[in-house]
Amino acid sequence: MDITEFVAASIGRWRSQRSAHHLAFGHFEAIQSEIDIVPLSIEDAAVIDLCKTYNFDPKVAVSPFRMSWAGQSDWEESEAVQGTCVLVPIPDPNQANRGKLLRDQGYAEEIAAVGDYSLTEDGTFVLVTAYDRAAAEEKIWFVNPNVRCRVSLIKTSAGTGVVTASFSSEIRQTS
Amino acid sequence: MDITEFVAASIGRWRSQRSAHHLAFGHFEAIQSEIDIVPLSIEDAAVIDLCKTYNFDPKVAVSPFRMSWAGQSDWEESEAVQGTCVLVPIPDPNQANRGKLLRDQGYAEEIAAVGDYSLTEDGTFVLVTAYDRAAAEEKIWFVNPNVRCRVSLIKTSAGTGVVTASFSSEIRQTS
Repeated sequence: MDITEFVAASIGRWRSQRSAHHLAFGHFEAIQSEIDIVPLSIEDAAVIDLCKTYNFDPKVAVSPFRMSWAGQSDWEESEAVQGTCVLVPIPDPNQANRGKLLRDQGYAEEIAAVGDYSLTEDGTFVLVTAYDRAAAEEKIWFVNPNVRCRVSLIKTSAGTGVVTASFSSEIRQTS
Repeated sequence: MDITEFVAASIGRWRSQRSAHHLAFGHFEAIQSEIDIVPLSIEDAAVIDLCKTYNFDPKVAVSPFRMSWAGQSDWEESEAVQGTCVLVPIPDPNQANRGKLLRDQGYAEEIAAVGDYSLTEDGTFVLVTAYDRAAAEEKIWFVNPNVRCRVSLIKTSAGTGVVTASFSSEIRQTS
């Protein structure tokens, strides 16, 4: 599976159950949300702007997409968990199934971010993103075309301590 | 990482936070437990018995171990979640990093089971076990020597439907 196939398989509306484990306190958080993943044109202004921010020629981008989510956490009942971001994969010209992923808003620190992705032999998408004070490591894989799993780890920037580990099971909505 | 190294890295006492997603109902279950993983001798009677049950020569077994767990679910507050089982890896003589895992008690149907394991290039242990009416697929990997992640999927035996997806974050206890 290459990045184009992975993004194509991800397009659609997903119902997500996410559990976050706050490791220091042994605390559980449960979040239910809907996620929409829609393809963008390579000529979309948001895609071109994001490429320019990170000094990439928009011509080398493949399969850009927008991800939006809206949901509810059992921690902050009154507050909706929602957001949207544009993501642009830039394949590495020298290494198959590796590259950069540009994002106009990261969810660990809510700032623009660029991560390093790779796709393993068994079809797992792995994304590592370094922020100023933290690092995020994410694995996403398909169990079947309609079920995705996602594990996200937020670490201290030194990289050794894991602060939060979260798991999402995502079911494709066919309505 | 081969199976001997993987088992060696797993030996110890772990504090586990597990979230189970019951997908049909969108229900979350939270389980906190302690897990003990101790090495067994290849000459341990339980190891020899389990090999005989599945017609393997105990001499081909490597790194057998016992796993015990005790914890509490938020679903059945009054009932302790606990158990113990013996696990015996039998490497495939013809394929590196693949083999059978014998278990004297499976946790999906609480019967003895034999699964197929493999270790991926990035060090993830993958275990697939077929039961009469269900199939279990498990991935375990180390984030660092003191943090393990585990994703378990219980599927219908046809293999397409995912019934339960669960995620454990496991922290080594050093006391």
